[in-house]
Amino acid sequence: MTIMQIRSFANGAWIGPADARPIMSAVTGEVIAEAGSGAVDFAAMAEHARTVGGPALRGMTFHERAGKLKELAQYLNERREELYALSFLTGATKADSLIDIDGGIATLFVYSSKGRREMPDSQVFLDGGIEPLSRSGTFVGQHICTPLQGLAVHINAFNFPVWGMLEKLAPTLLAGVPAIVKPATATCYLTEACFAMIVESGVFPEGSVQLVTGGTGDLLDRLGAQDVVSFTGSAETALMLRSKSGLIERSVRFVAEQDSLNASILGPDAQPGTPEFDLFIREAAREMTVKAGQKCTAIRRMIVPSECQDAVIDVLSQRLSSVTVGDPALEATRMGPLASTGQRVDVLTKAGIIATECRRVFGDPDDFEVEGADREKGAFLPPMLFHCPDPDAATSVHVVEAFGPVATVMGYRDLGHAVDLANRGQGSLVASVFTHDPAVARTVALGAAAWHGRLYFADRDSAREATGHGSPLPHMVHGGPGRAGGGEELGGVRGVLHYMQRTAVQGSPAVLSAIGDAWVPGAPEIEAPEHPFRIPFDRLRLGETIHTAAREITLEDIEHFAEFTGDTFYAHMDEEAAAANPFFPGRVAHGYLILSFAAGLFVEPAPGPVLANYGLDNLRFQKPVSPGDTVRVRLTVKQKTRRNAEYGEVRWDVAVFNQHDEQVASYDLLTMNA
Amino acid sequence: MTIMQIRSFANGAWIGPADARPIMSAVTGEVIAEAGSGAVDFAAMAEHARTVGGPALRGMTFHERAGKLKELAQYLNERREELYALSFLTGATKADSLIDIDGGIATLFVYSSKGRREMPDSQVFLDGGIEPLSRSGTFVGQHICTPLQGLAVHINAFNFPVWGMLEKLAPTLLAGVPAIVKPATATCYLTEACFAMIVESGVFPEGSVQLVTGGTGDLLDRLGAQDVVSFTGSAETALMLRSKSGLIERSVRFVAEQDSLNASILGPDAQPGTPEFDLFIREAAREMTVKAGQKCTAIRRMIVPSECQDAVIDVLSQRLSSVTVGDPALEATRMGPLASTGQRVDVLTKAGIIATECRRVFGDPDDFEVEGADREKGAFLPPMLFHCPDPDAATSVHVVEAFGPVATVMGYRDLGHAVDLANRGQGSLVASVFTHDPAVARTVALGAAAWHGRLYFADRDSAREATGHGSPLPHMVHGGPGRAGGGEELGGVRGVLHYMQRTAVQGSPAVLSAIGDAWVPGAPEIEAPEHPFRIPFDRLRLGETIHTAAREITLEDIEHFAEFTGDTFYAHMDEEAAAANPFFPGRVAHGYLILSFAAGLFVEPAPGPVLANYGLDNLRFQKPVSPGDTVRVRLTVKQKTRRNAEYGEVRWDVAVFNQHDEQVASYDLLTMNA
Repeated sequence: MTIMQIRSFANGAWIGPADARPIMSAVTGEVIAEAGSGAVDFAAMAEHARTVGGPALRGMTFHERAGKLKELAQYLNERREELYALSFLTGATKADSLIDIDGGIATLFVYSSKGRREMPDSQVFLDGGIEPLSRSGTFVGQHICTPLQGLAVHINAFNFPVWGMLEKLAPTLLAGVPAIVKPATATCYLTEACFAMIVESGVFPEGSVQLVTGGTGDLLDRLGAQDVVSFTGSAETALMLRSKSGLIERSVRFVAEQDSLNASILGPDAQPGTPEFDLFIREAAREMTVKAGQKCTAIRRMIVPSECQDAVIDVLSQRLSSVTVGDPALEATRMGPLASTGQRVDVLTKAGIIATECRRVFGDPDDFEVEGADREKGAFLPPMLFHCPDPDAATSVHVVEAFGPVATVMGYRDLGHAVDLANRGQGSLVASVFTHDPAVARTVALGAAAWHGRLYFADRDSAREATGHGSPLPHMVHGGPGRAGGGEELGGVRGVLHYMQRTAVQGSPAVLSAIGDAWVPGAPEIEAPEHPFRIPFDRLRLGETIHTAAREITLEDIEHFAEFTGDTFYAHMDEEAAAANPFFPGRVAHGYLILSFAAGLFVEPAPGPVLANYGLDNLRFQKPVSPGDTVRVRLTVKQKTRRNAEYGEVRWDVAVFNQHDEQVASYDLLTMNA
Repeated sequence: MTIMQIRSFANGAWIGPADARPIMSAVTGEVIAEAGSGAVDFAAMAEHARTVGGPALRGMTFHERAGKLKELAQYLNERREELYALSFLTGATKADSLIDIDGGIATLFVYSSKGRREMPDSQVFLDGGIEPLSRSGTFVGQHICTPLQGLAVHINAFNFPVWGMLEKLAPTLLAGVPAIVKPATATCYLTEACFAMIVESGVFPEGSVQLVTGGTGDLLDRLGAQDVVSFTGSAETALMLRSKSGLIERSVRFVAEQDSLNASILGPDAQPGTPEFDLFIREAAREMTVKAGQKCTAIRRMIVPSECQDAVIDVLSQRLSSVTVGDPALEATRMGPLASTGQRVDVLTKAGIIATECRRVFGDPDDFEVEGADREKGAFLPPMLFHCPDPDAATSVHVVEAFGPVATVMGYRDLGHAVDLANRGQGSLVASVFTHDPAVARTVALGAAAWHGRLYFADRDSAREATGHGSPLPHMVHGGPGRAGGGEELGGVRGVLHYMQRTAVQGSPAVLSAIGDAWVPGAPEIEAPEHPFRIPFDRLRLGETIHTAAREITLEDIEHFAEFTGDTFYAHMDEEAAAANPFFPGRVAHGYLILSFAAGLFVEPAPGPVLANYGLDNLRFQKPVSPGDTVRVRLTVKQKTRRNAEYGEVRWDVAVFNQHDEQVASYDLLTMNA
């Protein structure tokens, strides 16, 4: 077998390994590849990202970048079979590979969709609404986010060679920031194969993505205030990187996602015989064996009612005994080897520390079966379950992590005790709770949320569709306080903002309209050459406005509307009762009548660019309208979002005034325009 | 004059100075006070915050804490005259004191109001909406924020002894986190006086706030993953604190706000003779002299069109020549001394460095007038203006900060050059732009936003109401990247979240409803004992639901509605044209007709707890309703917010279905309920 030469991709070119180190198969222990970044010019690489990749990405809108993410996802999706083959060498079963490879591609799809739906088709992201900073509205505020002008360095862990790369690339590229990917060396051959597809696809512009396999050289010393390091791995490595490279001194953003001692609580109601007990056992076994337990989110501590400890150990052990350990390429294999023999040594060492306080109740590393591979040469281990008899006195079980198929069962006295034990991990990525009692869920959330980046509640109602304790989803924040690194990734748009700068902008409405690509009330109105409903999407300008004629709302109108719709609320029908209401001077018009008449005033009847009114946001009735009052409407183009070649969405700022020019209602009207 | 003995307030008791150091008057140089924390037990202090203050604060809702902020603001507001007197000793004029003291109290008021309007009347803050994570909706996600379970240490700068304390306390206490305030020793007597009022007011519970005057001892070594250090001061001190105390190793949150080399750009359109030129001169002079230039946001670099350099220097020098320097207690004094003679030495040293590249064009530290005080004994300096002839070659002018009445004028060739120069400060708290051209504003925003925490645009339109380059507002983020520390404070609710943990929560709708105090679609509906519009606010339960009868929408209804309202859009009136529209099968009912009929179906006519419908959010029309379809409504109590003793707001989740049980519209209905 030839030894794979794992390359880096820097400054637009592929570079072979230099000062290379060997990489072994997790299954056979044989040398299969070598990697080393000795020939990489890191200064040129950083410069390439800054001067070529960054400007090209920043020149696009969020929607353009989102479109490219989708294109890339489709490209990879068609080629994923090639990646599965390499994935076996890392110790991953086919099921493990689906999490890594398909999960990574799915993350690209989700970010593409979030980018299109939740970010604007422009270069500035608006964070929150307009802040009124002055009485008459000539001076207002708005927060905007713009892409950092530097680069992101992604330092990834060995356990998810593909997902680890793609889950960081998706938000970074969507933000408009170029990235340098640095995978863990042990499994970098799989990352390199996927990265080669990204380059080959040509989807993202030159300089957007680069790859370092092997060490990072002096790359981190070249970073500054517009750069981000996003790290996934152990707490020790994170601390070493931060301290050594002067990143703090240069205010480099550092996002850390570290393995943590994640807990799972079996609720007091989830006794043996309940669906939640069964769900707990199934999830516990899965978390121990998927990726051979090498997941930063895996359950390490099972916190169960004291009286259920024996039942949990019995049933879980029985389930674990059916797990086939062996060559991951074999269909029957449920659990493959660890990623390397080095990892195996580390896990055994940590398990040894845990064993000083806990008793091993399942799995013997010196005596277990391995199917289709040599137990001595591959990095194999059996699932190992411990029992901690005194979790209050124990210390290492809460802070020492054996990053493999290892977990510990411990008992709790009451729910408060369970929360305390969960929090003794000193901060985690995720804690789960198996309960069918919303009150239990609430108690745990109030007591434990501050210590955990994610809380996962499992019950019979959600079981069929739930995604699992250990699965970070692109929609939800991944990261956690304390031991988990204090960072955040993913979480939809939140994850994109880590690669952008939030800036408070203050000025006149005209200035804020120009910067935010959204018309701000108080900014100049542009007189429309014809009714703006007759102007096609592309020619419509932000700020284009019409003022309608006025229409009186008579008592007859109100009574007629009440009778027609059935809305005979007393405030519209009974002068005396209405006047007794603290908000009304007497009988008033229905809010829906005001809305309907407003539409009657601004609608253009004949077919034209406006295809449909698909919704309405932030409607507030600001002043009552009494019989005899008149209403008129100001309608202004606020924001435009192209959806496809045929049409786009237009958001209109609508204000309804009475005969005294007082605003009686305001809202955003949403239409679909050709 | 007796020497003031400045105390600490720890563990519920006042503690006099020990190992004290003297504090001098800025005006006379005489010893006026002494402070030292030698007698403080920091371990007990931290424990007191954690075990007494934290639980008491977390037991309240956001609205309860917001109410206390208002109470405190009112208490201080009545006593602020006492503080002005002490403030003179720090070198502050009355105008300076208004910024510090009144500005600090105003921040409490704003946070109280933001807490009531933008945060819920409960203990869990919902961050964003429900994330649908499953096809049929049995498994959903939501981000929540809960208070950190530790404490906040606020390390404040000498220049704003009152504002500096209150702007950090407001968001911290609103979050539900206890604080230990550590003011800069030079001006801590004023902070202590204000702090004593806070204690005396008894508004916040025991353990919520403590004070250290003097050094922080071993306090920082006692912090962990649930604690926050919020620092304002110099870059050097920030770096020293972070590196020395092992805060990184223990994942302690560290928010830094550092002085920076803030720039102000005079737009290419803002030539002499324009209102923007005059505004620029006025603001530049003000920024140099307010607080004797000791503001972290002060303008240090004036970036002006090359051809305007001489005009700027002339007009600005003329304005500065009218500034009276002297005893801040005198009415005629426009600028007082620096806070200490140590500061004066530092400013002169830094000005000396700047002078190696720039020429001093106004102000001579060895030759200026001081009114009513001894120039040699107080920490007096004149305003000093420099000119930098070659800002591209110069380096120190962009990174060396003289923290006093010192600024430098430099010329730019074109707008891109101006942006480059502004960004050469390596990250700042604020940059301002004086322009009346929105296109100039947009160009600067896209090029510079990533380097600056705030962008302030000034023009003739906003001049009368604008709040000034140098004023951080509680509504807007204060902080900046790089040189400015990379942190953020204030910014409304954003500032509160620095003291909370964001947690991703996943589970069934029932679980998320219980945790978030907001009903989630898919959670069980509670059958209301009577129409929920008849149930008083306090008895109304989240999830209480009615399903209305169904009503047919006939073609006659549609035509009648069109005629009555004037909304004769073709999609309602013309079968052929409607069918040609990509969204409609043929003629359809008006969205407003569906809304109006929906209201007719659920409204209760007689007087009852529902006082008014005051608005509507997130209305989406999901499916067209054709003539002959029927509609029915599900109306569910989603969220409740008490507003006062008489009434509160109720948010209703409304879904409208057709005869096939397909959802045709959904929205949040907002009512005011007794």
